[in-house]
Amino acid sequence: MREFDESSITDAVVARMAGSRDDRTRDISEALVRHLHAFVRDIRPTPAEWEAAIGFLTATGQKCDDKRQEFILLSDTLGVSTLVDAINNPVSGDVTETTVFGPFYVPPPEFGHGDDIGTAIEGLPMLVSGHVRKAGGAAAACAVVDVWHSDEAGFYDVQQMDKTGGLAGRGRFIADADGAFHFWTRRPAAYPIPTDGPVGDMLAAQGRHPWRPEHIHFKITARGCRPLVTHVFAQGDDYLDSDVVFGVKESLIRPYVAHSGGEAGGRTMTGPWVSLDHAFVLDDKQA
Amino acid sequence: MREFDESSITDAVVARMAGSRDDRTRDISEALVRHLHAFVRDIRPTPAEWEAAIGFLTATGQKCDDKRQEFILLSDTLGVSTLVDAINNPVSGDVTETTVFGPFYVPPPEFGHGDDIGTAIEGLPMLVSGHVRKAGGAAAACAVVDVWHSDEAGFYDVQQMDKTGGLAGRGRFIADADGAFHFWTRRPAAYPIPTDGPVGDMLAAQGRHPWRPEHIHFKITARGCRPLVTHVFAQGDDYLDSDVVFGVKESLIRPYVAHSGGEAGGRTMTGPWVSLDHAFVLDDKQA
Repeated sequence: MREFDESSITDAVVARMAGSRDDRTRDISEALVRHLHAFVRDIRPTPAEWEAAIGFLTATGQKCDDKRQEFILLSDTLGVSTLVDAINNPVSGDVTETTVFGPFYVPPPEFGHGDDIGTAIEGLPMLVSGHVRKAGGAAAACAVVDVWHSDEAGFYDVQQMDKTGGLAGRGRFIADADGAFHFWTRRPAAYPIPTDGPVGDMLAAQGRHPWRPEHIHFKITARGCRPLVTHVFAQGDDYLDSDVVFGVKESLIRPYVAHSGGEAGGRTMTGPWVSLDHAFVLDDKQA
Repeated sequence: MREFDESSITDAVVARMAGSRDDRTRDISEALVRHLHAFVRDIRPTPAEWEAAIGFLTATGQKCDDKRQEFILLSDTLGVSTLVDAINNPVSGDVTETTVFGPFYVPPPEFGHGDDIGTAIEGLPMLVSGHVRKAGGAAAACAVVDVWHSDEAGFYDVQQMDKTGGLAGRGRFIADADGAFHFWTRRPAAYPIPTDGPVGDMLAAQGRHPWRPEHIHFKITARGCRPLVTHVFAQGDDYLDSDVVFGVKESLIRPYVAHSGGEAGGRTMTGPWVSLDHAFVLDDKQA
């Protein structure tokens, strides 16, 4: 077949993919071509606009390295990550709701209960405690709890390794027989996602702020349970209604409680500190 | 607004772009989100599939450098470049039809009529001649004719600078008062697009060959005329019906005529050579 026009090109491209190595590859390829062509027919880009799109995608790929994933930021800020999350994790009873994974996860070092994962970062002392149970009711003994969060200036360790000297504000905890864990760290902060790349340029062009409300990331796995990827957001944050990556859910907002002095988490405190406690429920019906 | 589900997320993202810096940015952003979300809802990717998509886009961007544009290859092989070309260059009377630009253009050095642009590449001697006129009838005197093509092995100069020692198989000619130009070069060949990157992996997964039929690229500009970007394809080529980038049009297929010996283009030939002659018509109604 030759000689394609604005309407015939789409079926021609789809037909060329009929010999895909499996049905899923063919179905995804066909859907990609149909939706992408529909987008192009809808906006009717000039050659200069299409070149700008090629340039944007190229710059997005080239901004990525082992510490920065600009395409995840793009997916997040276009609401695609939240959509994929919603498709894969429909609300199910009292199972803890999920939210976006974000670009800053790296497998963390393991710590013991009560350890401090924030010694290399700045911020108010913060005691985080939690319980993990299964929807069926049993404690999720030995659940693996990975946590990661920013410092008080809103930066993750991987964004400032020269300052932290290594991973910081992240750790892995193994829940005890009751599914409980606790650790000390430093209070994080609301922060803008990195804006020095193509995604920052896009947000500026779209008239959007780049802020995420204050939160701590949790990734919790336990035998026989569906892995849980979520955040716990700080109640009262200014950006809960306008999270740039559309990740907030009411059930994930919790008080970050202010204290001054007292005994807590094996320490005697003399100044201000903050605490967060949250109960997580894992889905043990569809692992 | 918070708490988005699979259906509510799309309008929420679109609403966030209402303050775009201009109407065109807002319209493109909204169309992108609606079509991209529709694609995702259609295929319902698993988290692993979405990660693979992020990885594919990242690798595509990182494959690009000053000599390689993998996102243009992706646009070409998904038929998007041909679609954008069709939208911007509808067929108009006897104006020469356009086709895809491709990833191998670089501004070429200028040569004189009858010069040989193929001294640094291998292949059968080839004499290319052409006339450029305007749709209104007048010769396009002083039209700027940029040409570029592969060598007999199917490689462009920019893919093998270590071998060619510089630009080769490309040049700029200024048409004379009659709109005529001619030059010597080496006969190109059908060739596979580069398959050592993500686009090659995609074609393999889709069960597609990576070949383009033999062709020479032309980019012709003249005062008061719409720029023309096109190819002239070799009649009889095996891949005219299955060009991997969907670029073939009947009107752009011409005989690459075989000769042996004789006088041509200011030379006395003793062995085999080939000739191509084509008349180009520029659009002088919509510049």
